[in-house]
Amino acid sequence: MKTASRREHDLLGEREVPADAYWGIHSLRAMENFPITGTPISVYPQLIDALAAVKEAAALANEELGLLAPEKASAIVAACREIRAGRLHDQFVVDVIQGGAGTSTNMNANEVVANRALELLGHAKGEYQYLHPNEDVNLGQSTNDVYPTAVRVAAITAVHGLLQATAVLQDAFAAKAVEFRDVLKMGRTQLQDAVPMTLGQEFSTYAVMLDEDRNRLGEAVELIHEINLGATAIGTGLNAPAGYAETARRHLAEITGMPLVTSANLVEATQDCGAFVQLSGVLKRLAVKLSKTCNDLRLLSSGPRAGLNEINLPAVQAGSSIMPGKVNPVIPEVVNQVAFEVIGNDITITMAAEGGQLQLNAFEPVILHSLAKSITSLRAACLTLADRCVVGITANTEALRAAVENSIGLATALNPHIGYTAATAIAQEALRTGRGVAELTLEKGLLPAARIAELLTPEHLTGSATA
Amino acid sequence: MKTASRREHDLLGEREVPADAYWGIHSLRAMENFPITGTPISVYPQLIDALAAVKEAAALANEELGLLAPEKASAIVAACREIRAGRLHDQFVVDVIQGGAGTSTNMNANEVVANRALELLGHAKGEYQYLHPNEDVNLGQSTNDVYPTAVRVAAITAVHGLLQATAVLQDAFAAKAVEFRDVLKMGRTQLQDAVPMTLGQEFSTYAVMLDEDRNRLGEAVELIHEINLGATAIGTGLNAPAGYAETARRHLAEITGMPLVTSANLVEATQDCGAFVQLSGVLKRLAVKLSKTCNDLRLLSSGPRAGLNEINLPAVQAGSSIMPGKVNPVIPEVVNQVAFEVIGNDITITMAAEGGQLQLNAFEPVILHSLAKSITSLRAACLTLADRCVVGITANTEALRAAVENSIGLATALNPHIGYTAATAIAQEALRTGRGVAELTLEKGLLPAARIAELLTPEHLTGSATA
Amino acid sequence: MKTASRREHDLLGEREVPADAYWGIHSLRAMENFPITGTPISVYPQLIDALAAVKEAAALANEELGLLAPEKASAIVAACREIRAGRLHDQFVVDVIQGGAGTSTNMNANEVVANRALELLGHAKGEYQYLHPNEDVNLGQSTNDVYPTAVRVAAITAVHGLLQATAVLQDAFAAKAVEFRDVLKMGRTQLQDAVPMTLGQEFSTYAVMLDEDRNRLGEAVELIHEINLGATAIGTGLNAPAGYAETARRHLAEITGMPLVTSANLVEATQDCGAFVQLSGVLKRLAVKLSKTCNDLRLLSSGPRAGLNEINLPAVQAGSSIMPGKVNPVIPEVVNQVAFEVIGNDITITMAAEGGQLQLNAFEPVILHSLAKSITSLRAACLTLADRCVVGITANTEALRAAVENSIGLATALNPHIGYTAATAIAQEALRTGRGVAELTLEKGLLPAARIAELLTPEHLTGSATA
Amino acid sequence: MKTASRREHDLLGEREVPADAYWGIHSLRAMENFPITGTPISVYPQLIDALAAVKEAAALANEELGLLAPEKASAIVAACREIRAGRLHDQFVVDVIQGGAGTSTNMNANEVVANRALELLGHAKGEYQYLHPNEDVNLGQSTNDVYPTAVRVAAITAVHGLLQATAVLQDAFAAKAVEFRDVLKMGRTQLQDAVPMTLGQEFSTYAVMLDEDRNRLGEAVELIHEINLGATAIGTGLNAPAGYAETARRHLAEITGMPLVTSANLVEATQDCGAFVQLSGVLKRLAVKLSKTCNDLRLLSSGPRAGLNEINLPAVQAGSSIMPGKVNPVIPEVVNQVAFEVIGNDITITMAAEGGQLQLNAFEPVILHSLAKSITSLRAACLTLADRCVVGITANTEALRAAVENSIGLATALNPHIGYTAATAIAQEALRTGRGVAELTLEKGLLPAARIAELLTPEHLTGSATA
Repeated sequence: MKTASRREHDLLGEREVPADAYWGIHSLRAMENFPITGTPISVYPQLIDALAAVKEAAALANEELGLLAPEKASAIVAACREIRAGRLHDQFVVDVIQGGAGTSTNMNANEVVANRALELLGHAKGEYQYLHPNEDVNLGQSTNDVYPTAVRVAAITAVHGLLQATAVLQDAFAAKAVEFRDVLKMGRTQLQDAVPMTLGQEFSTYAVMLDEDRNRLGEAVELIHEINLGATAIGTGLNAPAGYAETARRHLAEITGMPLVTSANLVEATQDCGAFVQLSGVLKRLAVKLSKTCNDLRLLSSGPRAGLNEINLPAVQAGSSIMPGKVNPVIPEVVNQVAFEVIGNDITITMAAEGGQLQLNAFEPVILHSLAKSITSLRAACLTLADRCVVGITANTEALRAAVENSIGLATALNPHIGYTAATAIAQEALRTGRGVAELTLEKGLLPAARIAELLTPEHLTGSATA
Repeated sequence: MKTASRREHDLLGEREVPADAYWGIHSLRAMENFPITGTPISVYPQLIDALAAVKEAAALANEELGLLAPEKASAIVAACREIRAGRLHDQFVVDVIQGGAGTSTNMNANEVVANRALELLGHAKGEYQYLHPNEDVNLGQSTNDVYPTAVRVAAITAVHGLLQATAVLQDAFAAKAVEFRDVLKMGRTQLQDAVPMTLGQEFSTYAVMLDEDRNRLGEAVELIHEINLGATAIGTGLNAPAGYAETARRHLAEITGMPLVTSANLVEATQDCGAFVQLSGVLKRLAVKLSKTCNDLRLLSSGPRAGLNEINLPAVQAGSSIMPGKVNPVIPEVVNQVAFEVIGNDITITMAAEGGQLQLNAFEPVILHSLAKSITSLRAACLTLADRCVVGITANTEALRAAVENSIGLATALNPHIGYTAATAIAQEALRTGRGVAELTLEKGLLPAARIAELLTPEHLTGSATA
Repeated sequence: MKTASRREHDLLGEREVPADAYWGIHSLRAMENFPITGTPISVYPQLIDALAAVKEAAALANEELGLLAPEKASAIVAACREIRAGRLHDQFVVDVIQGGAGTSTNMNANEVVANRALELLGHAKGEYQYLHPNEDVNLGQSTNDVYPTAVRVAAITAVHGLLQATAVLQDAFAAKAVEFRDVLKMGRTQLQDAVPMTLGQEFSTYAVMLDEDRNRLGEAVELIHEINLGATAIGTGLNAPAGYAETARRHLAEITGMPLVTSANLVEATQDCGAFVQLSGVLKRLAVKLSKTCNDLRLLSSGPRAGLNEINLPAVQAGSSIMPGKVNPVIPEVVNQVAFEVIGNDITITMAAEGGQLQLNAFEPVILHSLAKSITSLRAACLTLADRCVVGITANTEALRAAVENSIGLATALNPHIGYTAATAIAQEALRTGRGVAELTLEKGLLPAARIAELLTPEHLTGSATA
Repeated sequence: MKTASRREHDLLGEREVPADAYWGIHSLRAMENFPITGTPISVYPQLIDALAAVKEAAALANEELGLLAPEKASAIVAACREIRAGRLHDQFVVDVIQGGAGTSTNMNANEVVANRALELLGHAKGEYQYLHPNEDVNLGQSTNDVYPTAVRVAAITAVHGLLQATAVLQDAFAAKAVEFRDVLKMGRTQLQDAVPMTLGQEFSTYAVMLDEDRNRLGEAVELIHEINLGATAIGTGLNAPAGYAETARRHLAEITGMPLVTSANLVEATQDCGAFVQLSGVLKRLAVKLSKTCNDLRLLSSGPRAGLNEINLPAVQAGSSIMPGKVNPVIPEVVNQVAFEVIGNDITITMAAEGGQLQLNAFEPVILHSLAKSITSLRAACLTLADRCVVGITANTEALRAAVENSIGLATALNPHIGYTAATAIAQEALRTGRGVAELTLEKGLLPAARIAELLTPEHLTGSATA
């Protein structure tokens, strides 16, 4: 059907574009050139919104500086607001992995905004003589400042979501720390019985670790508030008039509600991916901690009979297709896997950042893609871990206390009072004979019974007396 | 509406499942537990087909061994064949990243096959009293043998696709090597001018590298023909009758046309991910080579005026939203990014493999996911590199030859005839004065003109006389 | 000879120790158990000094709290001060990679300090009845608080050395940025000619990048000022009397001059390696930037005739054993290799941190080893890059300017004045015909000559007018 | 003192070299340029021997082809043989991490061989007019073929040492598999009790894994038998006469006893690091397996009272400086740490290989360094794990059997006989009440006592009846 397409042209020639597509010939070329993952950039709505915010800010700045007719600016702004309201996202069709430092993503945005603005102005899509993707929507801009700026804005939004999810998880661990504060248990070092502690102390560490990670994440996200909008191609600001960078920044800050600042050295800012490497490093740190925590949860809940069996994770699904009644720690397991992926993503980002050359890093798309995957998956992992696992954990209090009373590690508490050498002999005899440390100490007349009892109170052993 | 759902139960209780869903309560729980990436396993059709093939082989084996009624077996087989014909893939709904060593994927398959088989037998979905996901479809199986086996079958198919794509790319480079065999140019070491070669020699290296990678990939894929079907839970074959492993293997080999073999030690095979680590290592090797090759292509085509400008990559899209007429090496760039992702995936797989404990690796889902991403993206990268870049490369023959004639590296060829010390002096003087090596050698009377000319023929310089 | 050895015993039995060794039976066992790298911990003098500082602080605290006789405390303190003055380092003999969470390193320190203190008290080495490695030198301590504290103190010292080295390098780049501020050149994006800039702008980016990295490094090193001394085995402070942690911290802060603080949650602090992961992540970031910078330097100095040939790196050695007169960018190349090693070390640290279990990370020795290698090599790399490369770089000013004048990228500057479409046509014609952008623009009557000249002034092109 | 030094010169000028040094001015420059790790290449004696072997083979080839006077050739050969006999290794002084693709290592070798040969000829060191490092020792060679060839020869030797060590470890595990073949225990999946097996089966998996790794290692080492000697600078063989490559290869094969072959495409071979990436990938695979195995050993030996306590690792040193009698799994822990380092090294090698440009990879020194560290540490780790841990492992047979009899996992064995649904109910009741699976099954009349007993025999449960 003739009306099903329109003709567009670029420096390579002419092509048919579907008549109802808001994207145009540049997006079409990109789809053909990069059939890599099959996943379009619309999978990251925060990126689409951020692109629209940047285009809106640029239009307002251009209008304010007298470079863009108010009518055009209004149409562009209106189109961008529609996108930010969630519309037209399906028109962002280029692949998440693409060559060209984000040019295809930027052109996809330019084309969608232009065509929607044309419609709002009463023109047909593709009538670029009235409003042009490059000359109007992209006015005063370059992919090399638009794209990194949009990636930053999107990342800030995404990281805030992750910060909230980690807070939920931290709260869940903290609540358990309170609930388990009187549950005495053996602490372990190198998987060997060490000295007593409370299960509450154990769970408090998970809360504290997350708190530290949240602080680091907060610092890392601050670094990405520095944008290079106004840098244009390489940071020299060529074709951006005096005042453009600051005006555009001001509008973008207002639109997003983010305290964005313009980099002091735009040439540096345009080529540098250091802030992304830093952010990814902090995400990796969070992943390492979450993975360690989940390793612990799986270990402590091992059993039910031939394992440590200290805690019980809530059953959330049948564990086995062959072993009846088996319940597996599937929630911690999925968090471990997310962590492994985040660590892999960090290497991808590292290589992409290292591979940047001269005035630009051509590999920002895979940096964005990897960061977005890490943030998205970590957020989901924190929430599912909190809601479907941590809040439902219960303790096997009696068995835990019995293990303490039976423990050879109690010899450590007697160490300052009978000496390392004597305590070692007691420990070895207890291990060999199966007898108790207190009993042997008393029998050998090393300490009086009352003193032994005092040294072995939970308060003394777990340090809660001095805390 | 009452008919819109059916009730199913598992060890946790009862739940409503959409009436038209082929998946059941186990898949439902998994979807709720693992809302991680939003990507369902159906994104890997080769995995779905492989699962169906395994279920079909198991049913045939069970029937042959008298464990499953022929009527049930036929229904299961028919359902599996429909899936392998591409139907019902949308019913494979669990997330690609999931806890539980693949249990959710296996149960998703058991449920879809059971419900479709029930329909074929004239029953309603969910009437498991007639044919049960666990007791019939999963009969004699465990996730722990079904899932790794299906992953292997899927990976074999996927790698064969990749091998074909690398062959296409190798051929493209080999054709260019022939086309450019007489194009003389300067070879470089450490980015410094070294000694002459032909552009054909340069392109032949890319073809040879790929050929080696294909051989390694062929070896790695052979290793994953070893399956553990019949191992059941931990490799002891509990609940699988004598002869089951061999019978199921035979059927699976027939169904897939793959020369599958059963591991000699099923306990080891059930917990070991070594073959996946090896395969990923080879994929990483391929990624490293492709990335190096694309780095070279981008470097050789740098310019057009302030770069090496030795070759021209075909223009496949406008390069810049701000710089008119600029054409960028977007195809090599996207291949670089794929390579970085494959290298990241290898770390993910490494960590997941290292994290396996005792009789099972719980993290196989992220291993599968990472392998599948690597293979899929590498295949796409090879094809787009061949079709949209390599075949259209042209050489700037005249400029290349001029650079050779102007080169100080020619001093190397005179080295054996005038000595390293004299040749060094000539080279330094040429560099300082801008004069030519041949001219200076002649002027100093170090060699007669005819001898100089002979030593500087292309054949002598590039070794093609002795090749 | 009888006097050549002395007998010592531990829980495994008795062994001969060389009579002149300050280390004892625990160090001997460790040497036998861990013959891994052949590199003793004495290769890190900052670690040895830090261990001595911790032992000194603990002795002073123990004395102050009345737990250790003043005579013993004085002897221990004197021995520690000798070590910190550089003596006895050769007695720290255990391997840098060792099992046991640092126990062997701590016991090596306990034994050396004890034996030296015994001598100072007039006893023979090994006469532990007078002063005991465990009961006196290690009094109130555990490997699990001593070792992480010492590692932190050592790392703080090492990072300060690195910060100084990066400052030297930053200054070298900044000086070049000033020197080259008027050298006009083509900027490049994606290795393709983009728009003009100055060589000074290019070098300033390297200085700015380093400045940012130094800030991040400064933040990361602050995090490791938090110590867990007083935690003893698992953070509960068992066997450390009330006030011990604070007293020991105060002494250690005085001894080292570092503003150390005690962690709020010692259980968490004892098991957590997050600060090391963070520090390594920042070292990796620095490595990525250095590697990118060195890639640029190698690229810009490629040639001398068949390369970009924009800058000249100073010759520091003959480049080739076969090619006379060849000079290679060996200094940037060695920095690249250091960067690759630092990135590898980061993965080692990541895995070691993730592998920690329950109340302790048993893998701290390889974390220390990897961190120490990264910091040491980065420091050396920065200094050799500054001194042997950057300060001697010269520019090929004339050739750089000619490339700008000849450039098609100038079309970008005309873009806002003649439109993207017209500018694209000019650029394409210039490329096809070899003619200049200004010439073609004038010929086509798109802009008057004076306006063209104005738009193509260096000030306009490089943004220095608006800076 | 005047006689303490001699003067040498290179293209940069003159320098004093210590009179007794066999190395010369090129080595001196390299030491000054690369003060990175402080570790000289002599730390790898296999590399020094390999360099000497290559120099010897080249001299013999040059003599045979009439290019080198027999007297000179004999002196060079004699010097090389001294080096290969272990002498003069301390003269190989350049840093293991160095810029320049190995040029400094090659020149260090050229200088040492030349100066020793000069002495053998009756001349003084430094009298290069009689025998020259470049013109005689390096005749017909380039760093770019000498260095990769020597690295390969060294790696072959090193890998053979590793293969022997893995065989020792494999044998140790296999012996334990036999010893423990009748020790019944619970198998676990996802750390949850699964179904019974024998401890012998568990240990056999470690032996089988190692066997597979050894096969892969054997394949990988075969690939590095392909050398590029004769390629000279970039593979075109410039300055190497016809027949040189084959003659030199023949001599090198004879000297080393290795079946070396010359690459079919020397241009490709000179720039390609694929075989090293592959070898490192296989080393990483071995590391992953060893780490998993050691994780298991540490887990199975956890306790002694609050852990799994299934096996006992031999005590090899006191475990704690504070906890008397504690014995830690220090040998597996050191192996884990080696594994983490090998995985980090693999990333370093990956980045170095990816960073190669055009006709040469300038980063081979860090590839060699990383490979050598991985191979050396893995060898030591395998040997210490075998000798100091595995051979001394004992089993807690009674406790293991009791855990099986008490296990809920026995329900799995009844699954095919009472159905998945009924078995699930039994398992849940057993878990809730603490009663036994067999008892409940009998009580509910689901199976007769004799049938239950039969199904729960060790032979049936562990598959040893059918094996």
